Amino acid sequence: MADNKKMVEAITSMDEDFAKWYTDIVKKAELIEYTSVKGCMVIRPYGYAIWENIQRILDGMFKETGHENVNMPMFIPESLLQKEKDHVEGFAPEVAWVTYGGSEKLEERLCVRPTSETLFCEHFANIVHSYRDLPKLYNQWVSVVRWEKTTRPFLRSREFLWQEGHTVHATAEEAIAETEQMLNVYTRFCEESLAMPVVQGRKTDSDKFAGAEATYCIEALMHDGKALQAGTSHYFGDGFARAFDIQFTDKNNQQQYVHETSWGVTTRLIGAIIMTHGDDNGLVLPPAVAPIQVVILPIAQHKPGVLDKAAELKARLAKIARVKLDDSDNSPGWKFAEYEMKGVPLRLEIGPRDIEQNQCVIVRRDNREKIVVSLDELEKRIPELLKDVHDGIYAKALANREKRTYACTAIEQIPAVMEEKGDGFIKAMWCGDEECEDKVKEITGVGSRCIPFAQEHLADTCVCCGKPAKHMVYWGKAY
Amino acid sequence: MADNKKMVEAITSMDEDFAKWYTDIVKKAELIEYTSVKGCMVIRPYGYAIWENIQRILDGMFKETGHENVNMPMFIPESLLQKEKDHVEGFAPEVAWVTYGGSEKLEERLCVRPTSETLFCEHFANIVHSYRDLPKLYNQWVSVVRWEKTTRPFLRSREFLWQEGHTVHATAEEAIAETEQMLNVYTRFCEESLAMPVVQGRKTDSDKFAGAEATYCIEALMHDGKALQAGTSHYFGDGFARAFDIQFTDKNNQQQYVHETSWGVTTRLIGAIIMTHGDDNGLVLPPAVAPIQVVILPIAQHKPGVLDKAAELKARLAKIARVKLDDSDNSPGWKFAEYEMKGVPLRLEIGPRDIEQNQCVIVRRDNREKIVVSLDELEKRIPELLKDVHDGIYAKALANREKRTYACTAIEQIPAVMEEKGDGFIKAMWCGDEECEDKVKEITGVGSRCIPFAQEHLADTCVCCGKPAKHMVYWGKAY
Repeated sequence: MADNKKMVEAITSMDEDFAKWYTDIVKKAELIEYTSVKGCMVIRPYGYAIWENIQRILDGMFKETGHENVNMPMFIPESLLQKEKDHVEGFAPEVAWVTYGGSEKLEERLCVRPTSETLFCEHFANIVHSYRDLPKLYNQWVSVVRWEKTTRPFLRSREFLWQEGHTVHATAEEAIAETEQMLNVYTRFCEESLAMPVVQGRKTDSDKFAGAEATYCIEALMHDGKALQAGTSHYFGDGFARAFDIQFTDKNNQQQYVHETSWGVTTRLIGAIIMTHGDDNGLVLPPAVAPIQVVILPIAQHKPGVLDKAAELKARLAKIARVKLDDSDNSPGWKFAEYEMKGVPLRLEIGPRDIEQNQCVIVRRDNREKIVVSLDELEKRIPELLKDVHDGIYAKALANREKRTYACTAIEQIPAVMEEKGDGFIKAMWCGDEECEDKVKEITGVGSRCIPFAQEHLADTCVCCGKPAKHMVYWGKAY
Repeated sequence: MADNKKMVEAITSMDEDFAKWYTDIVKKAELIEYTSVKGCMVIRPYGYAIWENIQRILDGMFKETGHENVNMPMFIPESLLQKEKDHVEGFAPEVAWVTYGGSEKLEERLCVRPTSETLFCEHFANIVHSYRDLPKLYNQWVSVVRWEKTTRPFLRSREFLWQEGHTVHATAEEAIAETEQMLNVYTRFCEESLAMPVVQGRKTDSDKFAGAEATYCIEALMHDGKALQAGTSHYFGDGFARAFDIQFTDKNNQQQYVHETSWGVTTRLIGAIIMTHGDDNGLVLPPAVAPIQVVILPIAQHKPGVLDKAAELKARLAKIARVKLDDSDNSPGWKFAEYEMKGVPLRLEIGPRDIEQNQCVIVRRDNREKIVVSLDELEKRIPELLKDVHDGIYAKALANREKRTYACTAIEQIPAVMEEKGDGFIKAMWCGDEECEDKVKEITGVGSRCIPFAQEHLADTCVCCGKPAKHMVYWGKAY
């Protein structure tokens, strides 16, 4: 048990220093490694396998809803980026510029895509001519670059992986329905696959995507009470269509501009998983995206029959789950700590005595509950236990959010409640003026996260200015 | 049939102008679209779906052989690129340089990866310490950038998609075995999934990858008799390990350098598919990677029962193949031409008379053979027919290669035989001197493609200088 102790000690406790706890986990669970490229990281096999599971599930949901994958260039000529005024203003300050090809200076510099609206627009203008060509429902899985000053693994890095959906439609109604549909896809994914409850809402105007008419988002609350934007879905109206001249001939032979959307989630979701479910022993992974769902640990593996039985169980369980058998000569204590650190949902221990009794011991990662299971019932019990872990961590995350969501009706309550109970979501009424939004942030330190779809009437007046309130808003400190 | 005629006429015949035929196909089959980024392209849904199938199959083969996926940054600091002398000399002239982040000039410029040996080496140096850490068998699916002057869709573009495997091993033997294993994986993939026969061999020293001790390759012969390098696998020895100081402690507690490999295939494979199997009606896709394997075309679809039956067949066949039902109001003639252009392996026609007789007509794309199949036997016949198409196009490609492979024992025979019979592979003996290699190219226009593993003794002397021959070499004009 010496190694076990050593490994556990090596992580900072989350209550002591949440930021340090987070970076300890991304390193010790072997999710990432730093590089000499500032602000960029290596996503290691275990981290990338989580992303592959996220991709596989989401990609299936995108295809079920009629989307097709494409691949756009990674470069955007400066003149193309400049075509939509708000968009270029939002992104130009944070792009990386390519100025040389080999030893030759480029005539026009190219930015590395921070997002690809401009490229998709150029393409749509080329291929959309008639109402018969609509809608186009495209997505791509790529990396993008934003020249951030301060970076943190998964949460904010200069290069990150994401998917970006881009669609064009004949009508505003269709485009708005698409924006909502994709926000619902993200919500369902977060809840059903990541066990992460989210709040759906609309960003205030000051927080909209550069060039959007409306930005919808899902917001999650991390274990430390900070908010994290987990996904966004934008409705562009015909703004980009006008800037890029994307017109089609409708059924009445009239020229019309298309209506457009875009939507995306990123490797930031891995950061969200860590900060939603992790504990002082390391990662806790939602079963749906865990690279290893069950780790089989033989106990007293030198005794005759133990390794054979463990291998037999592995072969059986590989049909119903992602299973790993660790028959290395590390001590059981080291292995317990290792797979707890890696957040494997279920640990299956099998030793000589278990074999005699035709049973094994299964330990849940989330609450460490030990369950004795007959070897004859594994095919039935493992899926049930994986579901139990999912439900358990979802309930815990939801309870954390509920405990940390505070309704305030006066601005001075905001810092007071957070001082007393810790950071969290503040629910408060807002008049709709950007001035009040800024003032709340300035005075209390919390920014608007979203205007939730599920509105509540907490008061008649704005928490800041006292004028009539238009919306109930979620506010919070954010990653 | 008017539309049918129109579409077919729109492609240049391959005998008339092979290059134009090629670009006609990539556009008309909707594989790519050009962009305002010179030398870069949009891979459209139909083209990207082919790549997704290639990825899925190859990724499975990589994982079966123990490889794990990771993700490295897309940027390489100039100082890192320069660490291995041969490598930087080979790549520096053709990289894109990022010099600004936002409005700030970077202290050190970064190139967009042309390949990622340097990044993997830096990472391996960080994570490999002991023999217990070896081997590391990594791969990534990303895009890379090489600033080419002349570009052609899929064959040579400034940005292209690929996978790059990078592995480190304790011994030279293991690394060499890995290099060979991956060349065999590529060969099997090309033959079994792309129906494309390839020649396995080693590159001559002048054609090695920058920084490699040995480069192995698979070479395919296109329909026009030009050669195309379809995949490469490099053995690096400990050259990179020394440049990047990647050392490990062996079992005897001695410090050793690792031995390294890398290997890759690219979206160029899609170009190879087009030029190996395509014909004057368009693409001909190998069933294993065809986005649509069977297209169902209802005949006289306004007649009662036809569309219902077609939909019923679609639901049945979706369980065993990738199926599309086209019940649009385009004419059958237009549809025939459309799916021939797109290279769909099997076309299933179902009309009122077929339904009466409980049968349908299946037409093979490769040879246009019409087969009447009982509706009761579809689940058995469709997989057989897909296999027949695969075998048919493989045999045709092999026959083309055999017909176009010429043994020459004197240098003057080379241009003569190509003049008489058309371009192809030249088999000829070589003394091993780079001077002779260059001279053959200069005089005859064909370059060395590889020293094939399957050696033949055609003569005792070099085809160029007459000195004793060391190897039989495949020569050819290349894409």
